[in-house]
Amino acid sequence: MAKRVRLSPDARRAQLIDLGVQMLATRTLEDLSVEALAEQAGISRGLLFHYFRSKQEFHLEVIRASARELLERTAPDESLAPLDQLTTSLSAFIDYVTENHDAYVSLVRGAASGDETVRQVSDETRTEMANRVLKHLDVLGLPADPRTEIAVRGWVAFCEEAVISWLSGPDAPVLPRADLLALLADALPGVVLNVDPQWLADLS
Amino acid sequence: MAKRVRLSPDARRAQLIDLGVQMLATRTLEDLSVEALAEQAGISRGLLFHYFRSKQEFHLEVIRASARELLERTAPDESLAPLDQLTTSLSAFIDYVTENHDAYVSLVRGAASGDETVRQVSDETRTEMANRVLKHLDVLGLPADPRTEIAVRGWVAFCEEAVISWLSGPDAPVLPRADLLALLADALPGVVLNVDPQWLADLS
Repeated sequence: MAKRVRLSPDARRAQLIDLGVQMLATRTLEDLSVEALAEQAGISRGLLFHYFRSKQEFHLEVIRASARELLERTAPDESLAPLDQLTTSLSAFIDYVTENHDAYVSLVRGAASGDETVRQVSDETRTEMANRVLKHLDVLGLPADPRTEIAVRGWVAFCEEAVISWLSGPDAPVLPRADLLALLADALPGVVLNVDPQWLADLS
Repeated sequence: MAKRVRLSPDARRAQLIDLGVQMLATRTLEDLSVEALAEQAGISRGLLFHYFRSKQEFHLEVIRASARELLERTAPDESLAPLDQLTTSLSAFIDYVTENHDAYVSLVRGAASGDETVRQVSDETRTEMANRVLKHLDVLGLPADPRTEIAVRGWVAFCEEAVISWLSGPDAPVLPRADLLALLADALPGVVLNVDPQWLADLS
């Protein structure tokens, strides 16, 4: 019989955070109780506090790990053409939010906690996603100016809300996934570049 | 000497909620303590709980009143042309967020509370803002379909984040207010209509 593997405290802590991230896929942060985690991990509530000083610390680490996973999964593949990098990242983003809906809502809205540090993780994640676009403005044919910076940050929020809306329809999403992907990608030049002159002409 | 006016319990409660909304302009919901409110109102902490069953109930009422104020101040003037309704509403929106920054962040992100009902108020406010546009799609020259519904909800989130970004620069906002207003208004057709074919042609 194989000996049971003894994990180092750091490895055990990482394992508990992983478990928390998995559990967060289908429940909000406030519903991720220390009791539920201890039960899933097969350890006592008391032992859990050997690895985390408080519920707040545990929640913060879970949100941090979620944010890291999101950023890793949506990292642009720099070997692709700029427009393909954008659509590939956005496609991975749709998949991530679909698979981790509740975790994502917790992350984006920072809603599950009045904790300043949780909100900071949300903000930093959004900033990193905006920066990925802002780094490549020239190859994307978009102007580098203060207006674009604000527009791109707004566009990240647009993508967040669009995917959450798409998933939260009363039944199955009414828009095909490919159309959602096109909506997200097209919205980037849509918000940064000038408005379609034909639309304004038709409206006047 | 004039007699001191005795307010009815309902009027007193409304006055306390108003005071809470004012205090929220410059602090987040979690920093809006019952102690600070009682002090501002010149009443005891105990008396405050005569009007609100709990801190949660008080916070919920303050957020509700903030949401109502936002929606009232940005209500479209139906006597104007559709495009003017849009820009007038957006202009009022920029002013509201500028004057009530912290209250607005609390409202939008629902960040200050893990409370489900607070989050509901945030969601309903966003839905109402989206519906104002969705009601007028025909006169705005925009197609009425599932893609537009998702795009308009995303656009509301875009506007929220763009104004918050605009305000949170290290110094004074670098973009003139008129340009921010144009950015928000132009982003609506920008996300709903198809991408500028010239941009795609230049990029390919």
